[in-house]
Amino acid sequence: MADRTFAKFTFFKIDPAWRRRDDDLRAADKREFLAACEDFAVDRSLRAYSTIGTRGDVDLVLLTQSPRLDELHTFHVVLGQSGLARWAETPYSFLSMTKRSPYSAEGARPEICVSERKYLFLYPMVKQRRWYGLPEEERMRIMKSHIEVGRRYPEISINTSYSFGLDDQEFVVAFEGDDPGEFLDLVQELRPTESSAFTERETPIFTCVSMSARKALDALDGTAAVAAALG
Amino acid sequence: MADRTFAKFTFFKIDPAWRRRDDDLRAADKREFLAACEDFAVDRSLRAYSTIGTRGDVDLVLLTQSPRLDELHTFHVVLGQSGLARWAETPYSFLSMTKRSPYSAEGARPEICVSERKYLFLYPMVKQRRWYGLPEEERMRIMKSHIEVGRRYPEISINTSYSFGLDDQEFVVAFEGDDPGEFLDLVQELRPTESSAFTERETPIFTCVSMSARKALDALDGTAAVAAALG
Amino acid sequence: MADRTFAKFTFFKIDPAWRRRDDDLRAADKREFLAACEDFAVDRSLRAYSTIGTRGDVDLVLLTQSPRLDELHTFHVVLGQSGLARWAETPYSFLSMTKRSPYSAEGARPEICVSERKYLFLYPMVKQRRWYGLPEEERMRIMKSHIEVGRRYPEISINTSYSFGLDDQEFVVAFEGDDPGEFLDLVQELRPTESSAFTERETPIFTCVSMSARKALDALDGTAAVAAALG
Amino acid sequence: MADRTFAKFTFFKIDPAWRRRDDDLRAADKREFLAACEDFAVDRSLRAYSTIGTRGDVDLVLLTQSPRLDELHTFHVVLGQSGLARWAETPYSFLSMTKRSPYSAEGARPEICVSERKYLFLYPMVKQRRWYGLPEEERMRIMKSHIEVGRRYPEISINTSYSFGLDDQEFVVAFEGDDPGEFLDLVQELRPTESSAFTERETPIFTCVSMSARKALDALDGTAAVAAALG
Amino acid sequence: MADRTFAKFTFFKIDPAWRRRDDDLRAADKREFLAACEDFAVDRSLRAYSTIGTRGDVDLVLLTQSPRLDELHTFHVVLGQSGLARWAETPYSFLSMTKRSPYSAEGARPEICVSERKYLFLYPMVKQRRWYGLPEEERMRIMKSHIEVGRRYPEISINTSYSFGLDDQEFVVAFEGDDPGEFLDLVQELRPTESSAFTERETPIFTCVSMSARKALDALDGTAAVAAALG
Repeated sequence: MADRTFAKFTFFKIDPAWRRRDDDLRAADKREFLAACEDFAVDRSLRAYSTIGTRGDVDLVLLTQSPRLDELHTFHVVLGQSGLARWAETPYSFLSMTKRSPYSAEGARPEICVSERKYLFLYPMVKQRRWYGLPEEERMRIMKSHIEVGRRYPEISINTSYSFGLDDQEFVVAFEGDDPGEFLDLVQELRPTESSAFTERETPIFTCVSMSARKALDALDGTAAVAAALG
Repeated sequence: MADRTFAKFTFFKIDPAWRRRDDDLRAADKREFLAACEDFAVDRSLRAYSTIGTRGDVDLVLLTQSPRLDELHTFHVVLGQSGLARWAETPYSFLSMTKRSPYSAEGARPEICVSERKYLFLYPMVKQRRWYGLPEEERMRIMKSHIEVGRRYPEISINTSYSFGLDDQEFVVAFEGDDPGEFLDLVQELRPTESSAFTERETPIFTCVSMSARKALDALDGTAAVAAALG
Repeated sequence: MADRTFAKFTFFKIDPAWRRRDDDLRAADKREFLAACEDFAVDRSLRAYSTIGTRGDVDLVLLTQSPRLDELHTFHVVLGQSGLARWAETPYSFLSMTKRSPYSAEGARPEICVSERKYLFLYPMVKQRRWYGLPEEERMRIMKSHIEVGRRYPEISINTSYSFGLDDQEFVVAFEGDDPGEFLDLVQELRPTESSAFTERETPIFTCVSMSARKALDALDGTAAVAAALG
Repeated sequence: MADRTFAKFTFFKIDPAWRRRDDDLRAADKREFLAACEDFAVDRSLRAYSTIGTRGDVDLVLLTQSPRLDELHTFHVVLGQSGLARWAETPYSFLSMTKRSPYSAEGARPEICVSERKYLFLYPMVKQRRWYGLPEEERMRIMKSHIEVGRRYPEISINTSYSFGLDDQEFVVAFEGDDPGEFLDLVQELRPTESSAFTERETPIFTCVSMSARKALDALDGTAAVAAALG
Repeated sequence: MADRTFAKFTFFKIDPAWRRRDDDLRAADKREFLAACEDFAVDRSLRAYSTIGTRGDVDLVLLTQSPRLDELHTFHVVLGQSGLARWAETPYSFLSMTKRSPYSAEGARPEICVSERKYLFLYPMVKQRRWYGLPEEERMRIMKSHIEVGRRYPEISINTSYSFGLDDQEFVVAFEGDDPGEFLDLVQELRPTESSAFTERETPIFTCVSMSARKALDALDGTAAVAAALG
């Protein structure tokens, strides 16, 4: 099981009152948050995404991965000490693990979301219980045809992790792509597939803009945008 | 695909405490917000709507459009720096794209909501999954009869954009009209149509009063109303 | 269509912190709110209701009516400038219009809720979609027998307005009566009727105590009750 | 109808910030709240319950009864003036009336919850609409067998009041007992009864510790517990 | 019935503003909270869990047990006086009791969650009403095969307590284990079992890190993590 990893998606919404603080205080608040991220990322996977302009209830998403759950606990303890965390809510949080898929020859992935694509399309999924009552071959057949539609979109990579018993959803599904329109077309094309009829829940859906943690933090109070405008 | 555009609906609710600030501070807060809007609108589409008097959970709606998603991200980063944003929540947010409709000969629209009509009637829509299991001709037949009812109301224009995989709803549906009573009658007349039975969700519904961004901002603290009273 | 009117129900919940303000500040806050109401009511319909003691999430309900939606928008802009509005949330809001009923010979009512009865029983209603799939004669038959039960309670008057496409509900239903026990009995007696089985949603239900805007405002901080106690 | 009474359940959650106030301010806040309660209770029924340690979203429940609804309105106006009310939210509120039950020979009760038992188990109930479509004899038969199970637990008394048309639920159901384990066993034993299958909603469920209003108020900031510890 | 116990799960979310307080004030706040815990634990069962890094809506979970409900009430009154409680919300709360299971020869457990395993996986459960309509032997047969799957995971211990009539759920289900991946596999393996199809609700699901109350409190502001980093 050494190749399984925990994948933790943490969603932050910054209190609008934080933007009323002085520039240097905000800079220090972000610096402390960033230091915690960089420290974790020295030998573990940390990815950052901004949802400003795509969602109203979330500003920043962190994806942290480790084969040890206590490392994720410790990271979030340290992060909670940072100045920015004192002004942040976490409206969503998904804890999941990778696992060998029954529909693929591949083993469990030791890390997910490793591409350099521009966007991450992310949602928690729960299947209807009647899905699990189908014979295994039946489920296999249905998933195969679902996967075939996906193959027609080679520029989009899928990352599925599992939350059974650990968190409210059964799966966390994350797609990486450069073209949101292409992903929209894929999802719409999947609607008439048989597997789609077994979905119980697949919202909220987050369109996340991939960027460095530093840039995602700067987007919170516009520092980066201003610098770019001056530059 | 150069003719597809992203359409982002952002809904603002202003903290009642903002109204307790001094007049000149509020004026500055609005000025900064307006500057960001005007800057974006130089060569891209931005429309503003007030929902004061029609909704209780939203005060102001912005519709921004661009074929590039990063431009919408950057706009919202800049907007977040404005004084007013420091006192605003965003209780709703819809991200969508235009797309060629299977029920029309028209291509994807490069811009939506371009009329000068007084009201925008706006809601997110999700169809029941069994809809997508129907044969294509069947769906075509059902939508045709739905569309025919709409044709009887030529003063009402429809703007549909798509959110599959990008946001929680499948469609964002926006109607433009001058007479809310006429739109009410149309929607009630559509209830017995076959297509209506396939709706899973179509709320919340927003009746939005179309106006310039400046007027929609002035409505937040009554400046415009006062000026009109003096004038 | 000159006889149709917009009916806007606005629900206010006052921040408990408002009650910590000084007496004279609270008096001024209420005075400004009342002035906006009285100004609107000069030549248009405005009714006020208190829900203190009947609901936990709402303190005050205003019903404003006008054949012009922009007048309702302007009224709420002006109201928002008042001191009290700076401490108020609007947890609910129903926008509706009157319309000729298919089950009655009467035309659209130019004004609703005109009686002097003591209580208003108010709720938003959505019917199941299968209702709209029934043949018109069938719906007519079912509604007739529903209406007959209501006729046995002549002391209760009904006011139905329509929200299709304008707001989240299909109907806003408002009953006026002097005896809540009698209304309770009527509603329970309606449960076994055929029409009742087609209800999708009919909550929240508000029992509203009818009174002048001045008295409803005084109920917010007990001024009236104190005066009565002294008197 | 002189023997029917209104029964109003009001649920309070105290802002954690209230506990940061000075001891004497908190004492005064509670004194004012208690004075309102004692005044009402001079010739009407008022009962108090603490939910500290049994619920997370409510601290204190008041049950006030009167045959006149305006008396309940006035009581809540006066209560709202007290210091404690300035720091309290009311997350739940149930308005109901007593009524003659069709399943019993007894008339409408002039007062409910009159026992000296230690606990009150309280929940709002809505039945499925198909229940009301059953013939009356059928409903009578089903309820009889439901009531028979209850008879096997003579130490538990039931108090049912009615909210049709007055509030969101159809019934408010309140059981009084000294032994929570016995009540748990009764409810579990009722699950396989026919009537149980017709329940649409019966949550939230509140386990309330019965005590004087003074003690329930003291439990809010631990004064009573401290006194007991010192004593 | 002397061997039954109440089991109370209390979930705390600390206001981000608490982290802005001075170090010594925070230390005192935690000390008072800990003192209440230690006092209770002298002769009763108290367990603490951190959910930092696993959930976004909860930071700390306390499980307190006593055969007397008034002791749990008094504990929460005392706890509410502590400095930390003045900055804490309780977004969830489960009240339950142990009880003899119909599917086991064992009696009611006098205490649950007694292992030294690293994690607690916890959720409230409600079964579909049709479950209770099955004949007893049928339910027995279905549960037996469910339990057999669990037996294949001997490193995971199950603790079920009952909430019928006392709180919103029917059961509180708590699993103890050292390996979250193993638990995830077990839950996924249970999905195709017959019993799984009778689940009405089983969320939210909490992955809780077991630790002393002192450590769980230190995780709130990172004191422990810092000490470890220095050590």
